[in-house]
Amino acid sequence: MASNIFLKLLRVPASTQFACLRSGRSLRKKAAALTAAGSRLSCSNPPPEKISRYPIPYKKDLPYDIVVLMEEVESKGGFLPNVFKVLSHRPAEFRAFFAYYNELMNKDTGRLTKAERELIVVATSSYNKCLYCVVSHGALHRIYSKKPTLSDQVVVNYKNAELTPREHAMLDFAMAVCRSDTITDEHFRSLEEVGFDREDAWDIAAIAAFFAMSNRLAHLTDMRPNLEFFNLGRVPRDKSKNKAEDDL
Amino acid sequence: MASNIFLKLLRVPASTQFACLRSGRSLRKKAAALTAAGSRLSCSNPPPEKISRYPIPYKKDLPYDIVVLMEEVESKGGFLPNVFKVLSHRPAEFRAFFAYYNELMNKDTGRLTKAERELIVVATSSYNKCLYCVVSHGALHRIYSKKPTLSDQVVVNYKNAELTPREHAMLDFAMAVCRSDTITDEHFRSLEEVGFDREDAWDIAAIAAFFAMSNRLAHLTDMRPNLEFFNLGRVPRDKSKNKAEDDL
Amino acid sequence: MASNIFLKLLRVPASTQFACLRSGRSLRKKAAALTAAGSRLSCSNPPPEKISRYPIPYKKDLPYDIVVLMEEVESKGGFLPNVFKVLSHRPAEFRAFFAYYNELMNKDTGRLTKAERELIVVATSSYNKCLYCVVSHGALHRIYSKKPTLSDQVVVNYKNAELTPREHAMLDFAMAVCRSDTITDEHFRSLEEVGFDREDAWDIAAIAAFFAMSNRLAHLTDMRPNLEFFNLGRVPRDKSKNKAEDDL
Amino acid sequence: MASNIFLKLLRVPASTQFACLRSGRSLRKKAAALTAAGSRLSCSNPPPEKISRYPIPYKKDLPYDIVVLMEEVESKGGFLPNVFKVLSHRPAEFRAFFAYYNELMNKDTGRLTKAERELIVVATSSYNKCLYCVVSHGALHRIYSKKPTLSDQVVVNYKNAELTPREHAMLDFAMAVCRSDTITDEHFRSLEEVGFDREDAWDIAAIAAFFAMSNRLAHLTDMRPNLEFFNLGRVPRDKSKNKAEDDL
Amino acid sequence: MASNIFLKLLRVPASTQFACLRSGRSLRKKAAALTAAGSRLSCSNPPPEKISRYPIPYKKDLPYDIVVLMEEVESKGGFLPNVFKVLSHRPAEFRAFFAYYNELMNKDTGRLTKAERELIVVATSSYNKCLYCVVSHGALHRIYSKKPTLSDQVVVNYKNAELTPREHAMLDFAMAVCRSDTITDEHFRSLEEVGFDREDAWDIAAIAAFFAMSNRLAHLTDMRPNLEFFNLGRVPRDKSKNKAEDDL
Amino acid sequence: MASNIFLKLLRVPASTQFACLRSGRSLRKKAAALTAAGSRLSCSNPPPEKISRYPIPYKKDLPYDIVVLMEEVESKGGFLPNVFKVLSHRPAEFRAFFAYYNELMNKDTGRLTKAERELIVVATSSYNKCLYCVVSHGALHRIYSKKPTLSDQVVVNYKNAELTPREHAMLDFAMAVCRSDTITDEHFRSLEEVGFDREDAWDIAAIAAFFAMSNRLAHLTDMRPNLEFFNLGRVPRDKSKNKAEDDL
Repeated sequence: MASNIFLKLLRVPASTQFACLRSGRSLRKKAAALTAAGSRLSCSNPPPEKISRYPIPYKKDLPYDIVVLMEEVESKGGFLPNVFKVLSHRPAEFRAFFAYYNELMNKDTGRLTKAERELIVVATSSYNKCLYCVVSHGALHRIYSKKPTLSDQVVVNYKNAELTPREHAMLDFAMAVCRSDTITDEHFRSLEEVGFDREDAWDIAAIAAFFAMSNRLAHLTDMRPNLEFFNLGRVPRDKSKNKAEDDL
Repeated sequence: MASNIFLKLLRVPASTQFACLRSGRSLRKKAAALTAAGSRLSCSNPPPEKISRYPIPYKKDLPYDIVVLMEEVESKGGFLPNVFKVLSHRPAEFRAFFAYYNELMNKDTGRLTKAERELIVVATSSYNKCLYCVVSHGALHRIYSKKPTLSDQVVVNYKNAELTPREHAMLDFAMAVCRSDTITDEHFRSLEEVGFDREDAWDIAAIAAFFAMSNRLAHLTDMRPNLEFFNLGRVPRDKSKNKAEDDL
Repeated sequence: MASNIFLKLLRVPASTQFACLRSGRSLRKKAAALTAAGSRLSCSNPPPEKISRYPIPYKKDLPYDIVVLMEEVESKGGFLPNVFKVLSHRPAEFRAFFAYYNELMNKDTGRLTKAERELIVVATSSYNKCLYCVVSHGALHRIYSKKPTLSDQVVVNYKNAELTPREHAMLDFAMAVCRSDTITDEHFRSLEEVGFDREDAWDIAAIAAFFAMSNRLAHLTDMRPNLEFFNLGRVPRDKSKNKAEDDL
Repeated sequence: MASNIFLKLLRVPASTQFACLRSGRSLRKKAAALTAAGSRLSCSNPPPEKISRYPIPYKKDLPYDIVVLMEEVESKGGFLPNVFKVLSHRPAEFRAFFAYYNELMNKDTGRLTKAERELIVVATSSYNKCLYCVVSHGALHRIYSKKPTLSDQVVVNYKNAELTPREHAMLDFAMAVCRSDTITDEHFRSLEEVGFDREDAWDIAAIAAFFAMSNRLAHLTDMRPNLEFFNLGRVPRDKSKNKAEDDL
Repeated sequence: MASNIFLKLLRVPASTQFACLRSGRSLRKKAAALTAAGSRLSCSNPPPEKISRYPIPYKKDLPYDIVVLMEEVESKGGFLPNVFKVLSHRPAEFRAFFAYYNELMNKDTGRLTKAERELIVVATSSYNKCLYCVVSHGALHRIYSKKPTLSDQVVVNYKNAELTPREHAMLDFAMAVCRSDTITDEHFRSLEEVGFDREDAWDIAAIAAFFAMSNRLAHLTDMRPNLEFFNLGRVPRDKSKNKAEDDL
Repeated sequence: MASNIFLKLLRVPASTQFACLRSGRSLRKKAAALTAAGSRLSCSNPPPEKISRYPIPYKKDLPYDIVVLMEEVESKGGFLPNVFKVLSHRPAEFRAFFAYYNELMNKDTGRLTKAERELIVVATSSYNKCLYCVVSHGALHRIYSKKPTLSDQVVVNYKNAELTPREHAMLDFAMAVCRSDTITDEHFRSLEEVGFDREDAWDIAAIAAFFAMSNRLAHLTDMRPNLEFFNLGRVPRDKSKNKAEDDL
């Protein structure tokens, strides 16, 4: 039966590593560190701010699998990014969105670092004027790269940001995809000059393409970033704590 | 364990109807009709044309679930659209892509007709200069709408195409999403004037957003449309056959 | 007297060959072939569709020379393209328009093939979002080139269409003219690299310039393409007939 | 025979008034006045400046009808505008170009004044960055309108030029045509508000469309304006002479 | 003598209040507070990072008046913004630049608040992709407005930032000036609807215009923001300190 | 005290040469020459035309230093450019504006000629559609360069104006600054190829940046050029007078 076929299609091999949730652990640590430093984040009692133009479902009304995922993400990251709440308005689309997201952003294969992936999101989302993605992925870039100002630079203008030639070429390509330029062999040659092969090109382009979609969904819903994201990763913690993190 | 959580997330309820495959049946009929009318389509012995900049995996190297899906789609539609072959280069992304696609384009709920959904794809893909999506979804629009010239009109210029006010407002909104405009209440008011509510708006925007992604993946891979798509739905069949189709 | 001067100016040497009308013969054959294949085109009893925002003159109210031309074109091509009807609203402009058109598109000199000229029209008219010219000249390109899908590719995106390097350079130049770019020696060098000299450049540019005008007149009048154009040249006829055509 | 048909088509009724040449008389007077005022124009012995990227034919090599026209224009206007020389490189296109030009710019019917027609050319040619048309038709506007600064204003920015509401609406419409916008009923309503009907709209649009072509031909040939045009109509003559002109 | 005239022109009345330096005092307090909170800013021993494409003069080589100003600003603000160092390469331009800046941004008259002025700078500098101005004036906005996230929102997209209608209209106007749009009465009406009169309009436009210049000078010099700016005003201090500040 | 510091900052060394006023002398001579040639300029009794959207202060209400400057400029140039009147609405901004202007446009150092500086203003102001600056600085360019048509060419399209390679490269760079492009080493290399060093680059960019501001202030105020500017420098005077001017 038809439905069985797609059902099977959607079964991700159990061996897949979900770096997303692993990285959540790191987020939680960061938040804890920030709190310890004396700054009171608004996680504990968030104001009933409006985070979407569409209604946010009550947990009790959500499918069980989505609730489990949300609780896992929140317990590991310290707070639940609003994109989970906003997209849960459409559970079936939620599942497909995060399955895709997880594959592109959290997979353990490929040669793009986590920080590089986030940089692509920041640059292309800035072009698309997407507040949610710029702020949330800017935070993730700060955390993964340990460079507290680079994402802010890229938000304004990646062309004069303090990028390596590799990062610059990566963003040139991501922006070409972002603008829906016709991709030519010349694009691949520019990537090859800094050591990216065709599989890397796919990785870069797929992220730029996926966020072309995400940015537009954020515009549709007027999705607002959690307040936590604005400051995450900005203030360096003291040495002893950094050392601990390196052990993760 | 983390992987279990996502695994559950991706399990689509078995009750979901896969209109995609059902519609495949309709495609097959069309192709058969065309053939009967004397035109020899190239399905049987396709030239070894290049359909992607990336390698197309041999069937024997593909995961079983993907092969099963491809065979089902091909047997029902008469030919296998190249997007299946091209994206199978990345099986995990293939699964997420088609799960999402299926949810948006083939779901039985919502008030957008199949033809309307295809019209959104045609208009936005034309803006993004995506050959594959314009040609393939132009064909699907002709089939679903039974209007053999409207999609060609929309490819060139939706603003003076022979659209109903409802279709025009729908495409205005889809194009705003396509361009990554900031969506405002004014956009929703324009939709309401022709009878679309907020859930319809989400449906329209989600399709425009998904094809913002698809168009860019097609540019990445230089994806080429199957030759069959160019002519599908252009030549009306004779009355008796049309009647038969209405019985489906 | 002044009027005499212009009168003489407008006298085209009688030796000029009017390929336009000759090619009309070819159109008629195509239409006949299509009909023979079982598809009922709407030529015989066209619906009283609106083809212009301006009134279409009755034949009896038109100057004799224009009526004679229209009848000749219709008898040879199988149907009268709507541009003749629409522009006859202004007989004097009609005469100048078709004299110019005939010189650029139907002259026997120059090294551009008929198919190349049509390709220029398709590419630039698509940029200008002109429905009439894209659809009608797309049809003419299919007929002249015997390539049933190339014009559809060029409508969407000439940059990744299956063009020869010569065709690609030709369209790059035509598009520069179309956008009213400042033309520099660099443009001519690019043409020379694929074998076009300065006279060819003029031919290409003059066509792009003429259709810059035509496209805008079509927008003014909301000119609609004849239904026949949408399918012309799409379905290949059988071998014996093709052979006959080669004898023309 | 086909050629006969077109031959007849191109015969302009002898009753047509060629305002173009008549206005040439006015140009000659202007030039004479300027000369009398002490400024030595370069008509008599023009420097061998380059006026086109293409060769300019010797008079002896041009068809007789074109030579006669050129001499008539020069004798009446005081100098021969370079566009005649540059386009004579292609006699057949020359004939069609000036037949069309004459019909649009010099016809005695319609409600657009000569100055209004020139204003359309100035505004749209400035948008297209066409040096030849801006300078030469700026001069013609100054002469016809007797407003020595308005065309300079329109070259820079028609939106804050000292225009009447009628002129402003006329240029708004001309610019929409110039940009190849999709023309809608809304455009016609805006024209009606200042008293332009649909025939006036055609006149405005046809001029904007014709110069869309002319501007591009000027870019192709790198056509340079005669030096005379830069100053024509800038310096007011004394009263007695103005009175004489009114008697024309 | 001519020089005397300009000399007098440039003498600012002694009664002028230099809010700039006063606000410097506030900056210093902020920096001190941040330091007290445990975050080690890089003020004390800045890395010898490159802050301009042009050489930075040694203090000993600068005119006395410029050195005095720099020391005053640094002693009050806690660090010397790089724009002072970078522009001191051209002392005469430095003087004119800061005289103008001071008049627009620090004057005590007018109805724009300090925070509103900074918001204009952030929005327009983001459009111009000016890293220095976005980062430094984003910091100043956070400090003046006590809203730690609003400037980040405006950097990405002022259209969906959490602005009051007054702020939104102010930025709409500032952006029109920023893009060098033709300003019309309609612009002033939109400002009046939220309570801005023509003098306010001048204030808004003059700031947008001045930063049109500043942004371009920053691009010329590749001016880099001080690291301090990235974090200034992000982390709220505890209540007792806020109270103290209110007493200033 | 703070105000003292800025007071000192704004004191221009008395040794500064004010070429601006010297050049005013030259303007007066030009105007005189034009008058002698028989053309009556409107200096003596200007019509009460509206030159700004903001009120123009009465002389008696202006600060003494501004009145003195205006009278000096008018007595030397033959008429007072409207920008002085319009900006005097804000005396403090007036002082900063002209101090900056004077430094950039009238300084005796640097390698840009007066004509080159004006050419930068003309090209960038045309891009910004600023009527006042195009017309007034077009006039100044004609006077300084003694080329009566070059500025008109640059207004329409600097890319095909009759420029030297040095001028072309200069304008390419000025336009990059004008558009707020990210300036890269590549820009400096292009300048070096025609002999401009980094200090020249600063000079070019600072002028382009300053007029980015000026153009926007002119849009704000709807500033109108003096009628005198339209014709200044267009009509060459006779030889004897030219010789006299060379002696200046």
